Amino acid sequence: LERKLSAASDEGNQRLLLNVGGVRHETHVATLRNVPSSRLSRLAEWHVSGGGGRLEYFFDRHPAVFNSIIDFYRTGELHVPLEVCGAVVKRELDFWQIEEDQIKACCWRHYRSYIENQRILNSFNRSLEHEQDTVDLSSLRGWKLLQMKLWLIMDHPRTSRLAMIYGITSFLFVAASIAGFCLETLPGLRPELMPNITNTSCAGEQKKLHVIQTSNEALNVLDFTCTVFFTLELLLRFCVSPNKRRFVLSPMNIIDLLALVPLYVQVIFEQSNLQSCYMNERFVIEIMFILRIFRMFRIFHLVKHYQALKVLVYALRASLQELLMLFIFLLIAMLIFATMIYYAERSDDFGAGSEFSTIPIGFWWAIITMTTVGYGDVTPSTPVGYMVGTACSVCGVLLVALTFPVISNNFSLFYEHVRSRSLSPRVREESDDV
Amino acid sequence: LERKLSAASDEGNQRLLLNVGGVRHETHVATLRNVPSSRLSRLAEWHVSGGGGRLEYFFDRHPAVFNSIIDFYRTGELHVPLEVCGAVVKRELDFWQIEEDQIKACCWRHYRSYIENQRILNSFNRSLEHEQDTVDLSSLRGWKLLQMKLWLIMDHPRTSRLAMIYGITSFLFVAASIAGFCLETLPGLRPELMPNITNTSCAGEQKKLHVIQTSNEALNVLDFTCTVFFTLELLLRFCVSPNKRRFVLSPMNIIDLLALVPLYVQVIFEQSNLQSCYMNERFVIEIMFILRIFRMFRIFHLVKHYQALKVLVYALRASLQELLMLFIFLLIAMLIFATMIYYAERSDDFGAGSEFSTIPIGFWWAIITMTTVGYGDVTPSTPVGYMVGTACSVCGVLLVALTFPVISNNFSLFYEHVRSRSLSPRVREESDDV
Amino acid sequence: LERKLSAASDEGNQRLLLNVGGVRHETHVATLRNVPSSRLSRLAEWHVSGGGGRLEYFFDRHPAVFNSIIDFYRTGELHVPLEVCGAVVKRELDFWQIEEDQIKACCWRHYRSYIENQRILNSFNRSLEHEQDTVDLSSLRGWKLLQMKLWLIMDHPRTSRLAMIYGITSFLFVAASIAGFCLETLPGLRPELMPNITNTSCAGEQKKLHVIQTSNEALNVLDFTCTVFFTLELLLRFCVSPNKRRFVLSPMNIIDLLALVPLYVQVIFEQSNLQSCYMNERFVIEIMFILRIFRMFRIFHLVKHYQALKVLVYALRASLQELLMLFIFLLIAMLIFATMIYYAERSDDFGAGSEFSTIPIGFWWAIITMTTVGYGDVTPSTPVGYMVGTACSVCGVLLVALTFPVISNNFSLFYEHVRSRSLSPRVREESDDV
Amino acid sequence: LERKLSAASDEGNQRLLLNVGGVRHETHVATLRNVPSSRLSRLAEWHVSGGGGRLEYFFDRHPAVFNSIIDFYRTGELHVPLEVCGAVVKRELDFWQIEEDQIKACCWRHYRSYIENQRILNSFNRSLEHEQDTVDLSSLRGWKLLQMKLWLIMDHPRTSRLAMIYGITSFLFVAASIAGFCLETLPGLRPELMPNITNTSCAGEQKKLHVIQTSNEALNVLDFTCTVFFTLELLLRFCVSPNKRRFVLSPMNIIDLLALVPLYVQVIFEQSNLQSCYMNERFVIEIMFILRIFRMFRIFHLVKHYQALKVLVYALRASLQELLMLFIFLLIAMLIFATMIYYAERSDDFGAGSEFSTIPIGFWWAIITMTTVGYGDVTPSTPVGYMVGTACSVCGVLLVALTFPVISNNFSLFYEHVRSRSLSPRVREESDDV
Ligand SMILES: [K+]
Ligand SMILES: [K+]
Repeated sequence: LERKLSAASDEGNQRLLLNVGGVRHETHVATLRNVPSSRLSRLAEWHVSGGGGRLEYFFDRHPAVFNSIIDFYRTGELHVPLEVCGAVVKRELDFWQIEEDQIKACCWRHYRSYIENQRILNSFNRSLEHEQDTVDLSSLRGWKLLQMKLWLIMDHPRTSRLAMIYGITSFLFVAASIAGFCLETLPGLRPELMPNITNTSCAGEQKKLHVIQTSNEALNVLDFTCTVFFTLELLLRFCVSPNKRRFVLSPMNIIDLLALVPLYVQVIFEQSNLQSCYMNERFVIEIMFILRIFRMFRIFHLVKHYQALKVLVYALRASLQELLMLFIFLLIAMLIFATMIYYAERSDDFGAGSEFSTIPIGFWWAIITMTTVGYGDVTPSTPVGYMVGTACSVCGVLLVALTFPVISNNFSLFYEHVRSRSLSPRVREESDDV
Repeated sequence: LERKLSAASDEGNQRLLLNVGGVRHETHVATLRNVPSSRLSRLAEWHVSGGGGRLEYFFDRHPAVFNSIIDFYRTGELHVPLEVCGAVVKRELDFWQIEEDQIKACCWRHYRSYIENQRILNSFNRSLEHEQDTVDLSSLRGWKLLQMKLWLIMDHPRTSRLAMIYGITSFLFVAASIAGFCLETLPGLRPELMPNITNTSCAGEQKKLHVIQTSNEALNVLDFTCTVFFTLELLLRFCVSPNKRRFVLSPMNIIDLLALVPLYVQVIFEQSNLQSCYMNERFVIEIMFILRIFRMFRIFHLVKHYQALKVLVYALRASLQELLMLFIFLLIAMLIFATMIYYAERSDDFGAGSEFSTIPIGFWWAIITMTTVGYGDVTPSTPVGYMVGTACSVCGVLLVALTFPVISNNFSLFYEHVRSRSLSPRVREESDDV
Repeated sequence: LERKLSAASDEGNQRLLLNVGGVRHETHVATLRNVPSSRLSRLAEWHVSGGGGRLEYFFDRHPAVFNSIIDFYRTGELHVPLEVCGAVVKRELDFWQIEEDQIKACCWRHYRSYIENQRILNSFNRSLEHEQDTVDLSSLRGWKLLQMKLWLIMDHPRTSRLAMIYGITSFLFVAASIAGFCLETLPGLRPELMPNITNTSCAGEQKKLHVIQTSNEALNVLDFTCTVFFTLELLLRFCVSPNKRRFVLSPMNIIDLLALVPLYVQVIFEQSNLQSCYMNERFVIEIMFILRIFRMFRIFHLVKHYQALKVLVYALRASLQELLMLFIFLLIAMLIFATMIYYAERSDDFGAGSEFSTIPIGFWWAIITMTTVGYGDVTPSTPVGYMVGTACSVCGVLLVALTFPVISNNFSLFYEHVRSRSLSPRVREESDDV
Repeated sequence: LERKLSAASDEGNQRLLLNVGGVRHETHVATLRNVPSSRLSRLAEWHVSGGGGRLEYFFDRHPAVFNSIIDFYRTGELHVPLEVCGAVVKRELDFWQIEEDQIKACCWRHYRSYIENQRILNSFNRSLEHEQDTVDLSSLRGWKLLQMKLWLIMDHPRTSRLAMIYGITSFLFVAASIAGFCLETLPGLRPELMPNITNTSCAGEQKKLHVIQTSNEALNVLDFTCTVFFTLELLLRFCVSPNKRRFVLSPMNIIDLLALVPLYVQVIFEQSNLQSCYMNERFVIEIMFILRIFRMFRIFHLVKHYQALKVLVYALRASLQELLMLFIFLLIAMLIFATMIYYAERSDDFGAGSEFSTIPIGFWWAIITMTTVGYGDVTPSTPVGYMVGTACSVCGVLLVALTFPVISNNFSLFYEHVRSRSLSPRVREESDDV
């Protein structure tokens, strides 16, 4: 039976021998006609019109992918070979003039995953390059050369041994400043509030002046030393910066500047007559107080030194869509569960009396339950409330379980990429020109 | 030794040359007889009866899968090639007339995973298509055309720029309505309960009427505006809906309608004499109050706008069996641990005195412990109770760890599918005809 | 250069042509001598001693695996082809007489994973078969046939429609019994403790008799009905059981029996004079009370009905080693952290005064912290205690993260196996004879 | 068209036939010139200069990898075949003189993962070997032989049945000692503090002597027995140790020694006049008390007996970089969130009054929230505090989700490696010479 069929096709249809990269595939002209307007269907027409004299056609292409392509001609289903990277498949599909949307759903994931990874890693590499503006020191002279050398020492801790030492020193100052900031809040070391009632020239009424003066002496010295160091550093870095505009717009530099403001404002006010008028105002004190928080943000200087932090930042940036998804899911679940717990727990007509007196309290409860933190500061206490609480906690666990494989993908990808890059040093140049 | 064997088989058994898609496989007739009633065993019989004159048989099939099939004839074990998608293997097995249940347990997972994914993704694609009823606007005239255009604008935010603007406006109203609903519960903005004792015509006894009247003025205006908007929208959408029956049965439209009821009921009651009789009843007030909760469910309008929510809904629907499994596991563990903690903690003969005074309280404790929320509102306090608590928390962590890889599978699959589809626009058409 | 080398080898060493399943591999005699006492090295010796006249040797084996094997002869490193299942590789290694411990560490995981999965799945299938003792009804007559039919109806809910209906009815009784058991503990429905001081014949001192008598009437009726049903069912099932010994030793039947004891003991005691002597004793009441807990364990009858529960049981049994590992890790961490928190928090010389007054309290705290439940009933309150708490919580998160991929493996494997089996019905028979 | 092109190349460029391990690849000389200074480009030059007479070149190399390499010559993109282990690819790249940094980003992960795993597993195997110093007993005589035999019995529980029995006995003593240590802290068994005011010779002022004397009698006996056993064991093990220096520096032996100190110090002090002077001192009592904690660390003797613990230790050591990353991420997030919650919750100008009175309290809160333990001992109570708390809990969940796949990798790898090794005993020798 089988032989008769093949004998029939031997006579009726002409057999073609396709030599793809050394591997010979035999097929019939009828098979190649199955996918119109592709390279092989045109070859079949050409072969028939030419009398079918020639039996072998040679193509200098990947033989493994051609297996799938000739299979597509035979059966009409395009599946992808799993031993070949998706990018190679894409290139071969382009050559054979077959559209990628013919790929079946089952193979689509394998096919895309490699192309996706390549796309994300290339943009990641480009971001890294963007930061490492390679400078040609040999073309610089005089002041320009000195400026650039200082810039590299102060801003690129990995370029030289001196830069590394400076970087560590600078970070120790940051750490000291943060430590001082934290210690200041301890009861024993906390600055006392001195009611300062002497100078009442500009406002008639007698206000209590809450001036932050008599603190721990050691902490004051530390504070002063750090402030001087950071001021000098910021000025010097501004002077030697090769691109002033980019320097001014950099978020880290703005944080550094804002962190310096409170102390200088205080010094200025203390030396002038303005103090009594404005330092009294609640508003000014509040702003000064809030600006002190920027000291803490100096911790982000660590990004310059520690590459895993860079990976984290880029991974979060690349996963923005997935993070947004998680937030929207949490938001919707929060709204639903907060309303439900409010209704379930209201003891009286308007919820007054229960712990869940308002819906916004329910927001807080729902979030803390869904992230499985569960402080227990507000908890349901009615049977219906217990049911809502059960649903909320299970729902939180589900949301986390569903979205996390999707979110953690990019970080693992970037981290493994960076680690294998740092282990094989020559890859750096390669990934630059990808 | 080896040569003698092969020499013996040269004389005794006849060697066949099978050319499968250009790749030549040599084998003996005896080997092909190993699997009876398959295509190749019949070929072997035919070959022997025909005198074995012909040496090569040509099959226009996938060569990689044939490796596994000829291996099955040789060794009696059917393993699947891992470089080929399971769907291709299935097709080839059908051609060679070998049953898929011959596949060994070790390869079964690889084989099925692709077929499973294809099945799930195809049903997912069909669900998406089902929603996107593509309309041929060119075939419509006059009112029908206007109706359909309005319908697309109001219900399909992605079809045009105007539809997008309308969609955003509509969603802002939803957001405003929800914000108002939440703010209403804040102490400062909460409506006061006015005892309303004037009208006591239908019931003899003097009841306190808790009418929700004097609320914050701005919130009242917002409430009124939103209600008018939603009423008009619902009416207009009903008018232009091309399929009234489907419109009426749609859950979102029912929610929209129910959310409008409380305000209209209140208006009607206030204008009529019915108020005094029915508004007094606890039952009516309760229902009115509960219906207000439907306002919150308007948040689900977001599903229309945000595709990741659609993915979540379909993924949960596709994982129903796995979710049911999680719930049953949690239920059983809850029953067991609640009983055990009740027995472990009872201070007196019947548990009175301890925090776990009833088994249902134990349910609550067990669920909150197993989801690792752990509010701490009820905690064990006896040594045996500590042991039950330890078992319960470890068991919860285990249940979650065991079932989550199984549950999160479908969401990742759908999400990656949708994302790669949205990146390569032409795939849309392809996945439609799968 | 290359050509000269190959020319040299052409003259010096003899070239062999190995035809493995139709794919020709060329190699030198010297290469085959690299791995002594294997099939190919003996072939090479035989070839040389025979004068090397014959050039091609035919082996009816898997060609893809032979790639790796000839590569091992060439380079001395045995790597495994990733497109072939590990079980096939094992079979081919046996044929070529190469030991599996030659496989390099990098490929070992791929190689073993398939063999491991096959081993675990086969033992899983055997466990399932062990339960499903297939009975040949046609060979039975009279009472034996009736007995077996009743047995199938009562114990195998999936064998017939009647069995399914009976199974559901039976489970509804279980559910009703459990519901009654839980409701009994609610304050409104709780049985009152009647001091029963009438009969004081055998003990001189006057004891308070806590007899559980006057409970809610409906619950009493439910309790009585369920007890009668379960008694009859147990008796009938024992009568029709084909294997009495296995029936008696089955844990579920022992649970069923123990759950019936308390009520019958109570009935017996109430009817006899023994009551006053023994029912007074705290010990007897305690045992009766504890035996009531077995009612709850009737929930495990669900295993018979719900296959996912069976999967869970077998997965936990197959992961016993991994679970033991988790418990030992938790135990060690618990001991260390409990000691540390006890020392960190002791306010006085012997810890008296702090919340962590004893080390066992520290055990409880450490477990609840490491599973991230965190009730907050005991919390550290000193700086050193905070550090220990931080270490403990991070350590718990780490332990869970490290061990869970290892533990959840088997459950996913079994679950997917069962699901794909239930989707393709014919696989059942196949997996039976594996 | 296609034929014309191939005809043109037939005339213009010479076609080469490369036979790599039996598989023929056809290509043009021009293609081989694409990658300069590689083995094939030199072959092409040699072929052309030699007149192109010879048509086939034979290479005894892996044919599957050559597919990718010839593809690199054709297209300029180096992708890796996914059916071959990365280590094989590396070896083949070296042979063909192509640098690995030419591999595209999409395939890099597959390529490196096998090489990484091999590197980590080899260092893991080396660590295991390092511990198992294999001794050749046959070369020893007399005392040396006895010493070594005793050493193996006392320190290597897996070498003989006697060693196993000794190991279990020894560990039972450890368990008993730890149990006694924990029980001592229970209120009923706690040693009473005896004010000991008799002997006041060296200090003028009258101090209260808190001597730990009158404890539970059974615990004292247990304590004494264990101490004697551990002392004898330590002495004996030191005597028979083949490498005294390594013995003295081993952390486990130092722990054993330190755990013995407190009891001996107490005995010495009680027998001498020193007691009254030094035992009074808070400092000495404190140190004695703290040294008692080393008893608990004897639990680490379990590492010798239980291989999964060894796997855990090595996995943590191999993942040091990833653990450091997790700690730094947690540290930064802790600093930021602690500052923010301090500012958000301060009721007055300096935070006094709120639960978050200092920033270090905020550290504790942030860590406990980010690990989702959530004790609830300090919780935010202002709207801004709720927002910070929400951000902190979501951030904690994210950090854990992002870093855990990266951290848990090594443990799974090691665990599966050890398990499959223990299942196939002969692999042990193989992995030794890797
Ligand atoms: K928690
Ligand atoms: K908690």
